[in-house]
Amino acid sequence: MFENMIYLDNSACTRLDERVLEAMKPYFFDTYAVATSEFGYSMGIDAKEGLENSREIIASRLGTDSEEIIFTSGDTESSNMALKGTAWALKEIKGRHIIVLQIEDFPVLNTAKSLQKQGFDVTFLNVDGEGFADLEGLRKAITKETVLVSIQYANQEIGTVQDLKAISEICKEKDVLLHTDATHSFTRLPLNVKELPVDLVTLSAHTIHGPRGIGALYIRKGTPVSKFMDGGFQEFNLRAGVENIPGAAGFATAVELVTEDETRQLEAMRNRVIERAFSEIPDVTLNGSREKRLPQNANLTFHYVEGESITLHMDMRGFAVSTGSACFSRSLEASHVIRGIGGDHERAHGSVRFTFGRYNRMEDAEAAIDAMSEVVARLREISPLARK
Amino acid sequence: MFENMIYLDNSACTRLDERVLEAMKPYFFDTYAVATSEFGYSMGIDAKEGLENSREIIASRLGTDSEEIIFTSGDTESSNMALKGTAWALKEIKGRHIIVLQIEDFPVLNTAKSLQKQGFDVTFLNVDGEGFADLEGLRKAITKETVLVSIQYANQEIGTVQDLKAISEICKEKDVLLHTDATHSFTRLPLNVKELPVDLVTLSAHTIHGPRGIGALYIRKGTPVSKFMDGGFQEFNLRAGVENIPGAAGFATAVELVTEDETRQLEAMRNRVIERAFSEIPDVTLNGSREKRLPQNANLTFHYVEGESITLHMDMRGFAVSTGSACFSRSLEASHVIRGIGGDHERAHGSVRFTFGRYNRMEDAEAAIDAMSEVVARLREISPLARK
Repeated sequence: MFENMIYLDNSACTRLDERVLEAMKPYFFDTYAVATSEFGYSMGIDAKEGLENSREIIASRLGTDSEEIIFTSGDTESSNMALKGTAWALKEIKGRHIIVLQIEDFPVLNTAKSLQKQGFDVTFLNVDGEGFADLEGLRKAITKETVLVSIQYANQEIGTVQDLKAISEICKEKDVLLHTDATHSFTRLPLNVKELPVDLVTLSAHTIHGPRGIGALYIRKGTPVSKFMDGGFQEFNLRAGVENIPGAAGFATAVELVTEDETRQLEAMRNRVIERAFSEIPDVTLNGSREKRLPQNANLTFHYVEGESITLHMDMRGFAVSTGSACFSRSLEASHVIRGIGGDHERAHGSVRFTFGRYNRMEDAEAAIDAMSEVVARLREISPLARK
Repeated sequence: MFENMIYLDNSACTRLDERVLEAMKPYFFDTYAVATSEFGYSMGIDAKEGLENSREIIASRLGTDSEEIIFTSGDTESSNMALKGTAWALKEIKGRHIIVLQIEDFPVLNTAKSLQKQGFDVTFLNVDGEGFADLEGLRKAITKETVLVSIQYANQEIGTVQDLKAISEICKEKDVLLHTDATHSFTRLPLNVKELPVDLVTLSAHTIHGPRGIGALYIRKGTPVSKFMDGGFQEFNLRAGVENIPGAAGFATAVELVTEDETRQLEAMRNRVIERAFSEIPDVTLNGSREKRLPQNANLTFHYVEGESITLHMDMRGFAVSTGSACFSRSLEASHVIRGIGGDHERAHGSVRFTFGRYNRMEDAEAAIDAMSEVVARLREISPLARK
């Protein structure tokens, strides 16, 4: 591996912030007991206090109270619980229909498919060419049997930010629960659940320089959710398992460390990459919306070249970027997101995602696009698909 | 909290070993990418290698190959997956009956109860006065409809170690899958899945000075298990979610650090506590077997006194011990384990568990029993139940 690898895949995973580790250490080495009730021993009571402080910090970033936040092992579990928990709780009462966006990330998409196998009827809602949910289609798809709508806040690959306000108004009007996967937008885009009537929100620490293995689910008070993880009585008896208190402390600190200033810096890098790609490289398509996109995300298709080849050649030059190509993502097929917005296999295979994080600087973005220009030119020279 | 708290609740949670944290750091700060396929960038390939090395270390401690180990978020998830995964996979093929031990820990016990609500028939197998499974009862309970038997290796509270060999022979003879929760015995007691025909084993790092939020499930090749955590294609497409590679590295190091010598030291402390309690304190009952018990576990009922009072008074003297009393454990009722072995509420309420770990020394055990003698005498003086 390169000594000074420039890592531009921050939506997949992020480097841990040293300050996050510092926040975890007291719970590794000093207050390492499980959280006990007030009838427990003092180390357990202190541990409980640490857990609740972390919960409070995360809750307040969403504009809510801590009893509406439960800790999970990450966004995958949170989305499993949101979808299965509401579907199971309401199937006898309301019905067996759920609606998810066609371009959701795998935790939502494949949980929906798993519910399909359990006899639920699932609508995979269409998106337009930039990835925006079809709002009229949503309105029409909701029936009296619909127990849940799950539409992501921002897309994991192409960064398109949905109009959650309009979506939540439709759901409220139709009296159906709304879940949103905010894994990629949390702290980078505003979300206040007191102002926006969303009922469930998936959150994760791994995208914001927090630890892996910890996430959270916002559950609006009164929302019917069956337990997904059975066992002990932790997390208001909603999620069993020994509490990951160091993880929760790390997550809370990661949340506190994200600032508006930093997000604007990531956005500037993103903008620079998009601008230079369009002005310096021919035959480029921006995937997703130019205006309403995640501040840290650029996703471009460089036509006539293969994503795996780009990744390999960028890697040899010291840059880590990802592609919507099949083998890279281990998903067995080319990006369902690019195909969902109407792209063909060639567009999906040639797509490259740059996602910026705390440890990137503007010169990294500049260097990446310098390298990208060379790599694309070189690969097109040898590509049978390219226009010479 | 006391500056030098003597922590004797290592079965609930353990202090992280500094060497475990050192093993995690490279994956926090250097190789922090997600694990990619061989078509990914080099940091992802390195991350994958780290993950697979950790898997290999854990597998080899069980005497098996790494493709039979999947990482989870901990023992709770592993047991959820083992029970629900096999029940769901086999319900249409074989039947809807499972058998679990009456004194299982909550992840198995309450997952079984959750399956009951889903229409499964559950047998809660009895134990004798020391906590041993009723083997004749097991033999009789297995029907053609039985998809799974789940019997723990060693009990979380009273430390009784089951005769897994006899149990596995019955299951093999009757052609039924066997799961065992080895959360409290892993590395402390031998378990070789090549020699013992157990099909699924729950493991966790938090009991052996590893990180919280990471565990594993051993799944014998060919065992039908439905996915519990839906989403991405990680862990041989059996368990979705961004891999917790630092956690896996920490878990593997925690496994490597447990030695036979250390386990014998814990056993000596346990023996000393039991011996001194019996010789110095009147009206004491040992809960569980004297001979076949977890090396690190002592569980004693001090009659005529309340567990919460003991915990509180021990805490004031600087000792953290746990009790099977209801409020302490947050389980709403007094220990189902003590009641399972025929104890009444009084015996459950007065039970105290001492579990030893790496950071305890013999003088801690001695000091704990000194303090216990005083605390029990004092509490009995004011107890209306005590024989004066």
